[in-house]
Amino acid sequence: MSKTLAAYRDMYRTNLLDDVVPFWADHSIDREFGGYFTCLDRTGKVYDTDKFIWLQCRQVWCFAMLYNQVEQKQEWLDIALNGADFLMKNGRDEAGNWYFSLNREGKALVQPYNIFSDCFATMAFGQLYKATGRKDFGDIATQTFFNILKRKDNPKGIYNKGVDGTRPIQGFSLPMILSNLVLEVEHLLDEKLVDDTIKDAIGSVMDVFYHPDLGLILENVAPNGAFVNSFEGRLINPGHGLEAMWFIMDLAEKTSDTALTKKAVDISLNILEYGWDKEHGGILYFKDVKGAPPQQLEWDQKLWWVHIEATVCMLKGYLYTGDERCWQWFEKIHEYTWSHFPDPEYGEWFGYLNREGKVLLPLKGGKWKGCFHVPRGLYQCYQTLEFIASKKAATTLQD
Amino acid sequence: MSKTLAAYRDMYRTNLLDDVVPFWADHSIDREFGGYFTCLDRTGKVYDTDKFIWLQCRQVWCFAMLYNQVEQKQEWLDIALNGADFLMKNGRDEAGNWYFSLNREGKALVQPYNIFSDCFATMAFGQLYKATGRKDFGDIATQTFFNILKRKDNPKGIYNKGVDGTRPIQGFSLPMILSNLVLEVEHLLDEKLVDDTIKDAIGSVMDVFYHPDLGLILENVAPNGAFVNSFEGRLINPGHGLEAMWFIMDLAEKTSDTALTKKAVDISLNILEYGWDKEHGGILYFKDVKGAPPQQLEWDQKLWWVHIEATVCMLKGYLYTGDERCWQWFEKIHEYTWSHFPDPEYGEWFGYLNREGKVLLPLKGGKWKGCFHVPRGLYQCYQTLEFIASKKAATTLQD
Repeated sequence: MSKTLAAYRDMYRTNLLDDVVPFWADHSIDREFGGYFTCLDRTGKVYDTDKFIWLQCRQVWCFAMLYNQVEQKQEWLDIALNGADFLMKNGRDEAGNWYFSLNREGKALVQPYNIFSDCFATMAFGQLYKATGRKDFGDIATQTFFNILKRKDNPKGIYNKGVDGTRPIQGFSLPMILSNLVLEVEHLLDEKLVDDTIKDAIGSVMDVFYHPDLGLILENVAPNGAFVNSFEGRLINPGHGLEAMWFIMDLAEKTSDTALTKKAVDISLNILEYGWDKEHGGILYFKDVKGAPPQQLEWDQKLWWVHIEATVCMLKGYLYTGDERCWQWFEKIHEYTWSHFPDPEYGEWFGYLNREGKVLLPLKGGKWKGCFHVPRGLYQCYQTLEFIASKKAATTLQD
Repeated sequence: MSKTLAAYRDMYRTNLLDDVVPFWADHSIDREFGGYFTCLDRTGKVYDTDKFIWLQCRQVWCFAMLYNQVEQKQEWLDIALNGADFLMKNGRDEAGNWYFSLNREGKALVQPYNIFSDCFATMAFGQLYKATGRKDFGDIATQTFFNILKRKDNPKGIYNKGVDGTRPIQGFSLPMILSNLVLEVEHLLDEKLVDDTIKDAIGSVMDVFYHPDLGLILENVAPNGAFVNSFEGRLINPGHGLEAMWFIMDLAEKTSDTALTKKAVDISLNILEYGWDKEHGGILYFKDVKGAPPQQLEWDQKLWWVHIEATVCMLKGYLYTGDERCWQWFEKIHEYTWSHFPDPEYGEWFGYLNREGKVLLPLKGGKWKGCFHVPRGLYQCYQTLEFIASKKAATTLQD
C-alpha cells in the first residue's frame, strides 16, 4: 500500500509542478497592463481580457502560497507581485471595498456587491505578507479582514434585492470561507480574535447550517438556523459542503478536537453518498433536498472544483481518522476525476462537464475558474498523501 | 397540402384547448390567497408557493387573451380576474414599480429590480381592460407603461451593479419587448405615441442590435450600436432573436412594409441556421459569436420557449412571404418540438431538455416557466395555419 501511496503522491505533485503551475505561468500574465488573464481556452490562448477580482486575488494567493510552502522560487514570487501590484492600484473603491471586476487596463467594471472579492483579497495579501514581510501587504490584509467582519451581516449592502423581513435568510458561503480565511491571516491578528472567529465559524457551520435530521449541510437557512421551504432553503451544494468539511477537519486537528473531526468525516460521507451520481458517476453540482426541481439549470453538471475539493476532503478524513470508507471514496473520486478533468494534450484541467462526463465548455479558465482550486487541491493532496505515508511508516516501525 | 395544413392546425388547437389550458386551470389557482401557483411538477402538483410577478402577470394576460380572442368563457375571465385582484393588492411598491416576487400570501420578497415585471403587468392589465372595459385596469396598464418609458434608460435603477462609463452597454430585451407591448396597449394610448414607439422599437431591433456583417442579432451592444468584445457583447440568444422577428413581422404587416417583412424573414433564417444544433437537433440556448466559451453553463440546453417561438416565427414568415424555406424550417422545428416537449402522460410541456434532448428538469412550471409561451405560441400557430389555409384556398380559387 505504501507504494501505491507514493504513486498517488507523485501523480498529484507532478501534475501540480510540471503541468498546472507552468500552464498559468506561461499563459496568464498580462505583461502590458499587469494582473492576469484568466479567460484561457483549451490551449491557453486568451479569449477575454476582463479581470475578475476573485480570480486575480486567488492567483496572487496561489503563487505566494507555492513560494511559502513548496519552494522559494523568485519566478513564483514575481508572478504573485505582478497581481498584487495591479490589485493595489485598481482593485478597491474609495471605501476600501473590492470591486467585482475590472477591464484589462484596470478600470472598474462591476461594483463591490460581492464580499467574496474581499475574502480572496485578504487571503492574497495575507500570503504575500508571509512571503515578503512587507507591511503594506499586511495592512491591506487586515483592513480588508476587518471590513468583511463589519459587512458580514449584510454582505450585499445596497445591492441586496431582498425585501427586509419577509423571509430573512443567511447563506453558508461566508461562515464557510471565514473558517478558512482566519487561518490565512492568523499571523496578523490578535489571538483572541482568531479564537473567537474560529469558534463562531465552527458553530455556524456545524450547528446552524448542518442539519442532523438530514445529515446534510444546507446552503441557506433562517437566522435561527431553521429550515426554510423555498428554492434557496432547499438547496444542497455537495461540493461546498465537502470543501467546508476539510476546513473544519483542519480546525479540529489544530485544537485536537477528535469528536469534531469524526463529525466532519461522517458529514462528508453523508454528502458524498447523497451527491454522487449513481447513474453516470461524479458528484452533482446541486440538488433540492425535498427532491423538487432545483432552480439551477446546471444542477446535473460535473465541476472541477467539486471533485478536487472532495478528493482533499477524503484524504484529510483518512489521514486524521484512518476510516477506510474515506480511502475507498478517495479512490472512487480519484478515478472519476483523473479520467475526466485533466487535459493531457494541452495541460491543466477542464472545468465543466455535462452529466455524462463529456466536456461542456473547453475552457481552462473563465469568469469563475482560475488558478486556484486545482493547484491548491493538488498541493493539499500530495501533502496529505505524504503525511499518510509517514504515519503508516511510523505505525509499521512501532509494530 | 391543405389537408396537412388542417391537420397541423388541429394539432396546435387541440393541444391548446384540451391539454395546456386545462392543465393551468386545474392546477395553478390558489383559492386560498389568490393569484397562481406556477411551480408545478410533472403531474401538476405544487412544489413551491412563491409568486413571481412575471408569471402572475403572464397568466392573467393569457387567460384574458383567450377570453378576448378564442371564446368568451366566464371560467377564463374568472381565472384572469383572480390573478389581477391578487396583483392589484400586492404587486407594486409605493412608487408603482412592480416587485419581482411575493410569497404565497402576497408579501413582497424581492424588490422591483426587474423592469420586465412591469412589462408583463402592462400586458396583463391591457388585455383585461379589453375584456372588461374596467377603467381601473386600463389605468394600471397605462401608468405602468409610462413608468417603463421613464425607467427605460436605466431599467435596473439602484440595483445596477455596473460602474458608470467604463463599458456602457444596452440590452436587447427591452426594445424587443416594447415592440410587442405597444400593440398590447395600443387601444389605451395616443396614436402618435404608438407610432413613435413602434418606429423606435423597429429602428432599435433592426438597425442597432441586428448586425448585417454577422447576419445576427446581438443581445448587448454599445450605446451607438457598436459591437462590444466582452462576454455580454459576444452573446447570441437565438430564441430571443426569433421571437423578436415575429414581433417585427407583425409590425411590418400592420404598416404593409414588405421590405421589412422580408428582412425579418431573412434574419430569422440566418438565426436558425446559426442556432440549430447540427449534432443533436433542436435550437441551442446561447452561443458566443466569436466561438469563445459562453458564460452560461446552460448554453447547450433545449428550452421550450425557444422552440415554440421559432415555430411561430417560421409560420408567420411563410404566411407573409410564401418563402418555402420557412415552411421547411417549420416542419423541421415542429418535428423536434413535438417529439420532445409535450408530455402526453400528464399534459403540458417539459421546459428544459439537455443537449441530447432528454428531460433535464421534469417541471411543468417554475420560477421562469409559467402559463405563457406554450399557450400563446399554440394560439399563434393555429391562427397562422388557418390564415395560411385561407390564403391558399383564395389563391386556388383565383387560379
